[in-house]
Amino acid sequence: MSRNLKLGIFGFGVVGQGLYHVLEETKGIKAEILKICVKNKQKKRPLPMEYFTYKKEDILENPEVDVVLELIDDPKAAFEIVTAALKKGKAVVTANKKMVADHMTELYELQKEYNAPLLYEGACCASIPIIRNLEEYYDNDLLSAVEGIFNGSTNYILTKVFSEQKSFGEALTEAQELGYAETDPSLDIEGFDAKYKLCIILTHAFGLFVNPDDIFNYGIQNISEFDIKIARERGYKIKLVAKSRKIDDKVIAMVMPQFVSDKSELYKVEREFNGVIVEGAFSEHQFFIGKGAGGYPTGSAVLSDISALTYNYMYEYKKTKQVADLELSSDYEIIIYLRFDNQSIINKDDFNLILEEYKALENHYVIGKINFSKLVGSKWLSNPNINIILMENGNENHC
Amino acid sequence: MSRNLKLGIFGFGVVGQGLYHVLEETKGIKAEILKICVKNKQKKRPLPMEYFTYKKEDILENPEVDVVLELIDDPKAAFEIVTAALKKGKAVVTANKKMVADHMTELYELQKEYNAPLLYEGACCASIPIIRNLEEYYDNDLLSAVEGIFNGSTNYILTKVFSEQKSFGEALTEAQELGYAETDPSLDIEGFDAKYKLCIILTHAFGLFVNPDDIFNYGIQNISEFDIKIARERGYKIKLVAKSRKIDDKVIAMVMPQFVSDKSELYKVEREFNGVIVEGAFSEHQFFIGKGAGGYPTGSAVLSDISALTYNYMYEYKKTKQVADLELSSDYEIIIYLRFDNQSIINKDDFNLILEEYKALENHYVIGKINFSKLVGSKWLSNPNINIILMENGNENHC
Repeated sequence: MSRNLKLGIFGFGVVGQGLYHVLEETKGIKAEILKICVKNKQKKRPLPMEYFTYKKEDILENPEVDVVLELIDDPKAAFEIVTAALKKGKAVVTANKKMVADHMTELYELQKEYNAPLLYEGACCASIPIIRNLEEYYDNDLLSAVEGIFNGSTNYILTKVFSEQKSFGEALTEAQELGYAETDPSLDIEGFDAKYKLCIILTHAFGLFVNPDDIFNYGIQNISEFDIKIARERGYKIKLVAKSRKIDDKVIAMVMPQFVSDKSELYKVEREFNGVIVEGAFSEHQFFIGKGAGGYPTGSAVLSDISALTYNYMYEYKKTKQVADLELSSDYEIIIYLRFDNQSIINKDDFNLILEEYKALENHYVIGKINFSKLVGSKWLSNPNINIILMENGNENHC
Repeated sequence: MSRNLKLGIFGFGVVGQGLYHVLEETKGIKAEILKICVKNKQKKRPLPMEYFTYKKEDILENPEVDVVLELIDDPKAAFEIVTAALKKGKAVVTANKKMVADHMTELYELQKEYNAPLLYEGACCASIPIIRNLEEYYDNDLLSAVEGIFNGSTNYILTKVFSEQKSFGEALTEAQELGYAETDPSLDIEGFDAKYKLCIILTHAFGLFVNPDDIFNYGIQNISEFDIKIARERGYKIKLVAKSRKIDDKVIAMVMPQFVSDKSELYKVEREFNGVIVEGAFSEHQFFIGKGAGGYPTGSAVLSDISALTYNYMYEYKKTKQVADLELSSDYEIIIYLRFDNQSIINKDDFNLILEEYKALENHYVIGKINFSKLVGSKWLSNPNINIILMENGNENHC
């Protein structure tokens, strides 16, 4: 049956404080905060000072602490804390997506070796219980795809740009003020944050351990007024979409802006919300939507992990045992919109087939089929005067 | 760790056969079918006859059978099978919503007494993992509401009527042909099926054990062309919505047709899909959508329960321990549309406030605030020449 837990917390920012309040008002959960380890001695704290310490040993070496909550920003320091805690046999909960994605293999091995659980529901789409669902509910299913909007701050920005005609800069500032954007906004804007979440999902959906560097991400930083005009004319919104899809024994995965029509569930996912589509052979089409950023939704997910620990829950990583021989592939065809300001920048021969071509004084675009590996290897991809957007349903064809 | 399971199945209809195919193609799950107990000796079976038996003892008294799958239509016979199996200490999986809802208290006690698990994810919204999510993920949250479209066949019918201008009868026949409607369509049409699911959810969301007879259901059988015209004029669709909401220490619950605008997530839930909205104090607004009917989605949910049993999973019924002193209330105000063909039928004094009134030669309606207990007790409610539809956001005010 369930047991009482004593918590040691690292970090007391938006998520930590959100968690504290959620915990305060939740009578059912048997957990109490023993110590909170913070860095900045100057900062005023909203709790009595006896809760706080500046020495990590006060938590890591404290035999009373059952569960370590790692809620700091710095992925390197976070990994050290998590490693040390697991080696002490302590259960660990984290919401640090970069840290988990970067070290998935080591974290998996550490859990096995020390029989200590590491849970990280808060690292993926905050309030949407996607990892637990993939792990627990879809383990029997022939999963074919998991995709969606995994980043709340870019979605907030795109919503403001699309629905309220705000400029990109205005919208970004607003997202940061509301606490939806990470300290380093490029992590959000350039698609890294969504990619880290996708990597974690790849493990729990398809049993793959993937280095984030091996997954392609293209952000929303190059979206121009012209791109937005084209989207509007065609009845699309632009969304930053993370995708993974199993095709035979290959898995394709990427983060890219995509044109989304109102036929897609993702069309209506607005502001800081995230939306995840899960496709299975038998459960068919499932869609989850929930708040993807902010202290309370993330705090709530973290607390859910704590609650699971009172019942000694561990991820089983069932897919790593069930699904054999899946591997990442970049040999497949996608259909993209490529906008550029100068014909000499791009090489149209990189495309297998040009479907549409538009020329004007300032802006040009092509829409065409291109092999994904060709796109990723192209010279023009890093040019800031271009933009690429995946066409809707433009990623289904495997070569 | 996980164990191999030997299955005994009662019933081999749409769900049983769906399950069989799902199981066939799922390599990861450690479960094999030992025996299938069926009633009709004449029916041709799509499997070798050595799988089949006509004696329930061949499963219930067979010490090799670990898990009994109860997939028959008849709730009374189903309850006998489930009871007998639990008393033998066998794990049981069922998709029979009426049986579970009617006997929730007894089934809860039986599980405790014999320490045998009963799982029924397939009984609630088929492929949507709502019970597991309420049980596992929201147990720490201050849940405020669970509501949605819980019945695939009425939603299919309403979609056909609204989007394809089909008649009610045509749409019903089509739903039955596709296997979306129950053998007795009145269970669907009159809102009983959705109500049984709501009762099960009330236990897992709010810790309430509720007799289905104590929950009000009003179906879609009285929806007329006039009602549809009014809905269209106002930009609404009509959906059959099951609702539960916590207001202070009271819980309100009902199944009713409702006007739904495109501001609601439920607006886009079409055909046989179900949609469930979960509101929590911290996770805030969550929305799940998935196929709510059919052999494969239900079979997939049943198999997910089997998979959970390989890890000895049991529902903890955590809310029954966490949330104290909640009780069902019918003392609250709702806003309804009431259509009638004859002024003498209804009693307008039953309303606290009439907001709109429309008179014509054939059809009349009022929109007004009425106490829920007054509505349920009114004489005119059972008159077939009226119809009631809940106004959108018409159920938030507790007296």
